[in-house]
Amino acid sequence: MKLSARNRLPGTVKQIETGMVTAEVVIALDGGGEITSVITKKAVKDLGLTTGKKVYAVVKSTEVMVAVD
Amino acid sequence: MKLSARNRLPGTVKQIETGMVTAEVVIALDGGGEITSVITKKAVKDLGLTTGKKVYAVVKSTEVMVAVD
Amino acid sequence: MKLSARNRLPGTVKQIETGMVTAEVVIALDGGGEITSVITKKAVKDLGLTTGKKVYAVVKSTEVMVAVD
Amino acid sequence: MKLSARNRLPGTVKQIETGMVTAEVVIALDGGGEITSVITKKAVKDLGLTTGKKVYAVVKSTEVMVAVD
Amino acid sequence: MKLSARNRLPGTVKQIETGMVTAEVVIALDGGGEITSVITKKAVKDLGLTTGKKVYAVVKSTEVMVAVD
Amino acid sequence: MKLSARNRLPGTVKQIETGMVTAEVVIALDGGGEITSVITKKAVKDLGLTTGKKVYAVVKSTEVMVAVD
Repeated sequence: MKLSARNRLPGTVKQIETGMVTAEVVIALDGGGEITSVITKKAVKDLGLTTGKKVYAVVKSTEVMVAVD
Repeated sequence: MKLSARNRLPGTVKQIETGMVTAEVVIALDGGGEITSVITKKAVKDLGLTTGKKVYAVVKSTEVMVAVD
Repeated sequence: MKLSARNRLPGTVKQIETGMVTAEVVIALDGGGEITSVITKKAVKDLGLTTGKKVYAVVKSTEVMVAVD
Repeated sequence: MKLSARNRLPGTVKQIETGMVTAEVVIALDGGGEITSVITKKAVKDLGLTTGKKVYAVVKSTEVMVAVD
Repeated sequence: MKLSARNRLPGTVKQIETGMVTAEVVIALDGGGEITSVITKKAVKDLGLTTGKKVYAVVKSTEVMVAVD
Repeated sequence: MKLSARNRLPGTVKQIETGMVTAEVVIALDGGGEITSVITKKAVKDLGLTTGKKVYAVVKSTEVMVAVD
């Protein structure tokens, strides 16, 4: 499957915190730094996410803001 | 100003393509790879964005998806 | 690639209207009805989208609202 | 009330899973297939959502991605 | 139609800037201040938006960030 | 830090409801009315949000819909 979303950053699952509906997945990016994702608990299970798994953080371009110091 | 959005990746503006309402800003991330942002033309002007400027890509955690190969 | 986004509706591209930065893609859903997507012009080109092409409309669950009459 | 969001798919509530803040609502679409929505627990209560209720899944066009096989 | 989106701020259309696909609508809020919305050009036409028209800015709660000074 | 997001409404935290992953923050806007935000529990802690604290509700323009009666 090829997706229109422009942004796909490779990394490794560092931590998963699971709630009743959603889960927070912290991804250590291959390029350094971290990215936090909030997805459904069902998606975590469906993708078989566990600490150490290689994943991509995927973001639609219209969801990315820009900041300057 | 401190923001609730968990994700703030440092980089440099690589390219700006400006439309009538929106603009596409491509950011070369310090850690490697690129991230594309679509923001308003007004925001580009307001932040004084130009090629080579140091910026951050900022994303709310609920907008980040996870993918596996 | 397997994605955390829960929603993937099959359909056919009915119409593409291209701006300078973004493009509007109207998808006729296989189950009836239409869905409109706004993505970057670059994504339209990158996916090779043309009228009649089989595609999926993909939506993250946190982006779906519910309405009642 | 008439809304700018372009996408409104009719369906029936199939399942509701309620957390402490958010709730996951699975909607069986009239045209076939399902769509999952994550909204606040308060919205579920406010709209009186229950299994079997006729609803619409509503999505802003800028939140819809496109994928190809 | 009753919507799950928790936020509905009343105001008046102050300015509309129309591109090829999207349009920027600036709303002067009844409570003071402004809010800017980017929607499709088709939605502007469909809702009959013009300067001076009474409208609501509608935002899903998961799209609202919090900032502190 | 200066952000591309066009919308920043000043207010005061009225209520915080905390789940396992996310939290719902209700902000009483200075101009009247309320706005509800769903952010991560970690962001609530990181920003030191408590009832009565002066904050801003921040929203990216592409996330704002328009409605008419």
